Amino acid sequence: MKLLLTNDDGINAKGIYALAKELEKEHEVVIVAPDNQRSACGHSITITDPLFVKELKIDGIKSKAYSVSGTPADCVRIGIDKLVDGKIDMVLSGINNGFNLGTDVIYSGTVSAAIESSIYKIPSIAVSTEINDDIEKYSVPAKYASEILKILKDSYTKNDVVINVNVPLIPKENIKGIKVCNIGSKTYDFYFMEDTSENNDKRFYLKGALKESEEEDTDVYYIKRGYVTVTPLHYDLTNFKILDEVDKVFNK
Amino acid sequence: MKLLLTNDDGINAKGIYALAKELEKEHEVVIVAPDNQRSACGHSITITDPLFVKELKIDGIKSKAYSVSGTPADCVRIGIDKLVDGKIDMVLSGINNGFNLGTDVIYSGTVSAAIESSIYKIPSIAVSTEINDDIEKYSVPAKYASEILKILKDSYTKNDVVINVNVPLIPKENIKGIKVCNIGSKTYDFYFMEDTSENNDKRFYLKGALKESEEEDTDVYYIKRGYVTVTPLHYDLTNFKILDEVDKVFNK
Repeated sequence: MKLLLTNDDGINAKGIYALAKELEKEHEVVIVAPDNQRSACGHSITITDPLFVKELKIDGIKSKAYSVSGTPADCVRIGIDKLVDGKIDMVLSGINNGFNLGTDVIYSGTVSAAIESSIYKIPSIAVSTEINDDIEKYSVPAKYASEILKILKDSYTKNDVVINVNVPLIPKENIKGIKVCNIGSKTYDFYFMEDTSENNDKRFYLKGALKESEEEDTDVYYIKRGYVTVTPLHYDLTNFKILDEVDKVFNK
Repeated sequence: MKLLLTNDDGINAKGIYALAKELEKEHEVVIVAPDNQRSACGHSITITDPLFVKELKIDGIKSKAYSVSGTPADCVRIGIDKLVDGKIDMVLSGINNGFNLGTDVIYSGTVSAAIESSIYKIPSIAVSTEINDDIEKYSVPAKYASEILKILKDSYTKNDVVINVNVPLIPKENIKGIKVCNIGSKTYDFYFMEDTSENNDKRFYLKGALKESEEEDTDVYYIKRGYVTVTPLHYDLTNFKILDEVDKVFNK
């Protein structure tokens, strides 16, 4: 398969290195990733500023690699349009340094790249694991990415499917299996710390205390219990569950 | 009601002025908006950098107003946590200078602010109209925002509801009514124009040709036919329609 790899931690991150190393064994890989850290950039795109693109060589990786002065969604767009020759079979985004579970998914640049890909009818997988700085620890998530890619290729080839994958940071033999589930709730009791600034403006720093729901059968629930979680996502934010209710409110 | 107003066009935009002017007639309004244009920032948030906040006076507006050196979602978070005293009853985001219809919704800072609000259990309305630079033309969308606010307040008070509203830029008497519908498809045949840069990097500028679907019963469809469109949104990106299918693929 011809694969485009991207992420939001930037082209020098360990996660994308591990993912490329694993996938280039069997596939044609092109890396198109932001030139630096872009976490929490959400589904942001660059409209008026130009994008600067540099071709580069990553030590130990044989695949082509490009850095882009933009967001993960920009990387997917310019990858499709200019940097990859021919049809891309799938986009893989990650491996993110930090889970993308529950409500956090909406802030994630890694997930947004995968969703952008589906808008342009290329199936995609976003892969994340627990925060860590050890290159060795990305090998298990990389193997799951490869396995899930194979399952999708063999049995589920829809051009607008987005699969969000989170892999717990435990030895492979302790992982209990793969759970397909919806996203859970993960919010923050955030608060801003005020600080004095040179002029009279107020200056605030974000602090936040994580507040996870204990709702069962969600990604937040299963990751704590040693499962790899798989959630199909899409770009349609319509709340179909209440569409009829709202219709009645406006058309009484 | 106590209302927080924000947008992604920045605190000096005509749309937020018109919205505040209309809503402060009957409600307590606090404006918390980005210090400059933040279009297409998606659901981006500021994590490590500080946020600078300035209190200011907008000519012709009696409500309190703050500019924030961050994104629309940041404005909602810091508004809730630090700038507005007491409980906010609803967040209104807009009036956006440009529709937020179909697939474009996912890139929109205006919509993301409304979604952020719902994550923190405050209902919200995002309001957009066709691109224009005439302050007078924002008065019809502002009146619809006020009317829709009233309908929701009287008949549909859920703390996590997000209502996306688009108002066509035609005289009020020509508007055919309000349609509740799901979002349609609106993609771009985008392409990047290559340009020479001083060093050897490649530099690209985005161009794009709009490609709207003609699918019936969507926001894209009704706006062209002279209706105000109303779509309930949510922050859960799970694709519930294919959840069972995907489960079968992984658990054969």
